Amino acid sequence: MILVLVPDAEQAAIDRLRQNIEAKGLLVQHIHGENTTMLGIAGDTSEVDQESFLRIDIVDSVMRVSDPYKLANRKLHPQDTVIHVKGHTIGGGNLTLVAGPCSVESEEQILSIARDVAASGATFLRGGAFKPRSSPYAFQGMGLDGLELLKIASRKTGLPIVTELLSHEHLDDFARDVDVIQIGARNMQNFSLLREVGKLKKPVLLKRGLANTIEELLMSAEYVLSGGTADVILCERGIRTFETATRNTLDLSAVPVLKKKSHLPVIVDPSHGTGYWHLVEPLSLASVAVGADALIIEVHNAPQYALCDGPQSITPEVFHTLAQKLRRVHEAISN
Amino acid sequence: MILVLVPDAEQAAIDRLRQNIEAKGLLVQHIHGENTTMLGIAGDTSEVDQESFLRIDIVDSVMRVSDPYKLANRKLHPQDTVIHVKGHTIGGGNLTLVAGPCSVESEEQILSIARDVAASGATFLRGGAFKPRSSPYAFQGMGLDGLELLKIASRKTGLPIVTELLSHEHLDDFARDVDVIQIGARNMQNFSLLREVGKLKKPVLLKRGLANTIEELLMSAEYVLSGGTADVILCERGIRTFETATRNTLDLSAVPVLKKKSHLPVIVDPSHGTGYWHLVEPLSLASVAVGADALIIEVHNAPQYALCDGPQSITPEVFHTLAQKLRRVHEAISN
Amino acid sequence: MILVLVPDAEQAAIDRLRQNIEAKGLLVQHIHGENTTMLGIAGDTSEVDQESFLRIDIVDSVMRVSDPYKLANRKLHPQDTVIHVKGHTIGGGNLTLVAGPCSVESEEQILSIARDVAASGATFLRGGAFKPRSSPYAFQGMGLDGLELLKIASRKTGLPIVTELLSHEHLDDFARDVDVIQIGARNMQNFSLLREVGKLKKPVLLKRGLANTIEELLMSAEYVLSGGTADVILCERGIRTFETATRNTLDLSAVPVLKKKSHLPVIVDPSHGTGYWHLVEPLSLASVAVGADALIIEVHNAPQYALCDGPQSITPEVFHTLAQKLRRVHEAISN
Amino acid sequence: MILVLVPDAEQAAIDRLRQNIEAKGLLVQHIHGENTTMLGIAGDTSEVDQESFLRIDIVDSVMRVSDPYKLANRKLHPQDTVIHVKGHTIGGGNLTLVAGPCSVESEEQILSIARDVAASGATFLRGGAFKPRSSPYAFQGMGLDGLELLKIASRKTGLPIVTELLSHEHLDDFARDVDVIQIGARNMQNFSLLREVGKLKKPVLLKRGLANTIEELLMSAEYVLSGGTADVILCERGIRTFETATRNTLDLSAVPVLKKKSHLPVIVDPSHGTGYWHLVEPLSLASVAVGADALIIEVHNAPQYALCDGPQSITPEVFHTLAQKLRRVHEAISN
Repeated sequence: MILVLVPDAEQAAIDRLRQNIEAKGLLVQHIHGENTTMLGIAGDTSEVDQESFLRIDIVDSVMRVSDPYKLANRKLHPQDTVIHVKGHTIGGGNLTLVAGPCSVESEEQILSIARDVAASGATFLRGGAFKPRSSPYAFQGMGLDGLELLKIASRKTGLPIVTELLSHEHLDDFARDVDVIQIGARNMQNFSLLREVGKLKKPVLLKRGLANTIEELLMSAEYVLSGGTADVILCERGIRTFETATRNTLDLSAVPVLKKKSHLPVIVDPSHGTGYWHLVEPLSLASVAVGADALIIEVHNAPQYALCDGPQSITPEVFHTLAQKLRRVHEAISN
Repeated sequence: MILVLVPDAEQAAIDRLRQNIEAKGLLVQHIHGENTTMLGIAGDTSEVDQESFLRIDIVDSVMRVSDPYKLANRKLHPQDTVIHVKGHTIGGGNLTLVAGPCSVESEEQILSIARDVAASGATFLRGGAFKPRSSPYAFQGMGLDGLELLKIASRKTGLPIVTELLSHEHLDDFARDVDVIQIGARNMQNFSLLREVGKLKKPVLLKRGLANTIEELLMSAEYVLSGGTADVILCERGIRTFETATRNTLDLSAVPVLKKKSHLPVIVDPSHGTGYWHLVEPLSLASVAVGADALIIEVHNAPQYALCDGPQSITPEVFHTLAQKLRRVHEAISN
Repeated sequence: MILVLVPDAEQAAIDRLRQNIEAKGLLVQHIHGENTTMLGIAGDTSEVDQESFLRIDIVDSVMRVSDPYKLANRKLHPQDTVIHVKGHTIGGGNLTLVAGPCSVESEEQILSIARDVAASGATFLRGGAFKPRSSPYAFQGMGLDGLELLKIASRKTGLPIVTELLSHEHLDDFARDVDVIQIGARNMQNFSLLREVGKLKKPVLLKRGLANTIEELLMSAEYVLSGGTADVILCERGIRTFETATRNTLDLSAVPVLKKKSHLPVIVDPSHGTGYWHLVEPLSLASVAVGADALIIEVHNAPQYALCDGPQSITPEVFHTLAQKLRRVHEAISN
Repeated sequence: MILVLVPDAEQAAIDRLRQNIEAKGLLVQHIHGENTTMLGIAGDTSEVDQESFLRIDIVDSVMRVSDPYKLANRKLHPQDTVIHVKGHTIGGGNLTLVAGPCSVESEEQILSIARDVAASGATFLRGGAFKPRSSPYAFQGMGLDGLELLKIASRKTGLPIVTELLSHEHLDDFARDVDVIQIGARNMQNFSLLREVGKLKKPVLLKRGLANTIEELLMSAEYVLSGGTADVILCERGIRTFETATRNTLDLSAVPVLKKKSHLPVIVDPSHGTGYWHLVEPLSLASVAVGADALIIEVHNAPQYALCDGPQSITPEVFHTLAQKLRRVHEAISN
């Protein structure tokens, strides 16, 4: 940590500040800049709130030098994390496809879609039982009934279940029945939920919030990891910008940045990331080309009648063709 | 709701679409535009997912005409909502000051600050017992012990308590002890929490999320109101933009926009909105001038030692002078 | 165009408005919505300022139905535009590589890089002679001397020149010497320059502005096209968001959106789009996978000594390997 | 400037880097951080491109310590700049009102509005002769004829002229006839125009670009100041964000930030900053309360027929009442 001092800081005040910091067991070094005096602070600063220094009169700005996350940090854990779930994997050079409807609507629907996507190469089944909707008047998902239907579909196809947890009250149900617990974008900084879900020691798919930086996503992963779970999958699903031609702006640069900073696998959600089904194919191909370990794609057998997210769902037929192209691109970049 | 059709839509397809919509009990009207055919849909469309129309081949785009919120809508509730709490009010032409530290740290601290801000004209006490922190290693608040200290300070000063609820597990404690329950920016779309807090029928201070539009804030208010609470205070606290000179970009235009669209009172948080104590005074003055009903300001007796948010806290002395200026500006715009 | 009226609009006022609009030779149709009255306006509305309607008391909002651009619009020009320059092409299913240094620094430098990138498969040479720099104290490019060096390199390698025009004063020089005139992001809405460059009837590479929507990019293309040029290449080079891990946020969804809305070819600039050389490879691969017609990449033989943009330049060796991978991905998606 | 080195940097490489930097006449100091080695660089680094260090293998990141602008920097010029134009002033504790129509439409129009706003207390006349429009088909202003009408209105009312320069070709006309030359948001980084306008040594009103940071605005001011002009007025006019309820997001925090960092006066444009006339009053009041030296407001005698920006223009009657309120708020904060 480096403190940049104001130009006219008096020596007596600088000395007092040094003594205060050294009293915390930290080392202080004087740095002479261009017209600027700085203090470098070394030692274990993890419990020091760097912002508190900004309130000291002679401190002009504070610069952080080291990363604020540890468990998620590749510098400390150079090996890629590879996640294994019921014989399927995410990470480690594979291309994993997670597919299924936005929300579970009926046994027939979820089973039919699960069979279709499995036949096309998907190895995980997604499907919402609890849906976060911006309107209290919109369809909120089938709830625990939806979870039961996911279990049936999973049993009959062998695909592990990926579904979103919205609230503490269903922690036990998810711990028992769900293979990969999804934390949605709107809950990325619901720290109380992150902490609880981390204690379950199940794989967690953590979505980036609409206004959250890559570093904040890693800090939220740190919450989950510090609960005890080793398996977190980081999900890029688009951020909010001024552009309105797409529902969100899919930030594909986040994929290589995350893979450089962290050892955790990265998944991309081109369905929410764009909001339009005709953009799902090109952005899925781009996600594989940019180095994503996995894709999570909304597939619906009758998108025009879907109870939510119809415009961004593709049909099983489109998914089938897309999966083939995805494998070709994966091969093209793997050599 | 208006459906804009693609240029080459065939008449047979248009007729099928009309019949489908009319089968839902809605009225359909043909509109002839410039090279464009549109269908206007009238009737109770609140349960119709407008996006589902985008999956129909001949539909190019969908335009919504009416607001998606009802209980929060000034068109349906023209009178200003005025909130009364233990003899103090928010709304109705008054200027209400909510003040206190970022987090409760000790009985001495909270009591001393509460007395100071009360003496300067604040009529509500803020103070965090549970703190949402982006790092799992940072101070997370005193928890229920902090709540006890807030109660002591409230009893001794007569100031009602405003404090943030982070999780379902403390709903009962807050229902019993807290006067105005704050929902923070990061939980603005934690719909499960919004629904529960609305059932408590206590005043709720709802903060706008970092990446949320004014309309989404009103939709989240709708969740709380639909739970049964009549008293929601809308809080502008800055949005996330590309600018880094301030912690957030305080969107003061949101104040008159919210007051036009809704009957609910509006409060501004210039402390989180800017992130720097020296910006709190000018932005507080601006908030009053733009028409805010109330301000929520972080005040700390020793900001350089605060356990969080030190850089954005002002001292009781600065608050005292500021409160006088705020009243002068309020008077200047009230005549 | 549709005017949504306020709920309590009086019939007499509605009638007056209708008459005013009809007096301009336009057709007005009454539309009955849910609790809402609307007026649909048909006819040639291109000279009508839709915003002016917002000042009329009884008008609540105005919705545009048709696109504001014509010459750039695929609906009116369904065939892809393919641009031919000195035996090389951009568009039409090819993958075109434009490569070269951020700025021309010496004859030896530009010639060496031009030869290297040509050998690796680039068919156009980029290089800045005039550089837009945010600081008046930074290196501003070699100017006309740089242009002379580009001409030498072009003559010796056969690569057409792509370079940025900053100002009216060099229009004649560029008309004479430059093969593809680049308009940079900061000048995307320098309408006076757009108009002039369009009159030269030379191919124009138009970069998207940092805060400009896809529609605004198309409107700026419309300025150039309306000057007389038929050949505009649209360039996605990243937009400005809150994320700071990358220099800009490369919006790859813009590529398929632009190709759907317009017939013009699309090029991606992963160098400026990310700002870091190690992100250029993955984002280049993603750009090809998402459907870009071309890439423009900064290549420098000694990036650590480059006079500008060193951190985002790759070496000729990295470019050589990348070009091979790009062709493999292009093949994988073309079948 | 501080270079943070990668964790495993070898001593030999560090020594080489030190020698390279010292060879440029700069001082290098070794700094020991928490698990991190850093090099502090002192001396005249203004010609050193800090980004070039990022290409050196052992450099992980570069941190700038000093501001990149000098002439605009309050640290070097502590006294407020006060601008005097034909007996009127901007800055120095006054509240200056600049008012007039978006565009000049006729002699009668501009004269009538000029007389009205002068009577209400405005001391500068704004009015567009050359208009930057996003559509090539929209009204582009009356051009030099409009400038002639502004001169007539200025002569008859004594109000100096503020109007926007779009292009180099009118530099001579503006040098002769215009009192304060406006550079619009879209040209804030048209560096070639900034340089030329600075040489005219006339007051320049420089608008912040839609996606430009406060620091970039100051860097653009530096361009103008380095041309020779001493009088630059910095204009906050809203930035582009995800919010669509307003045309832009007016960033009022920029006002005190600019006044802290720079000695130049600050003006706010609430008309473009919001886009709606009913928001102009509250945001004007807020601008004065936050500490702006001046306001620039669009006033039109018949906004519903204005050739541009009608929705954001207020009538002379509304301006008259507003001016009185603005003075009351100015008084309230000045004591």
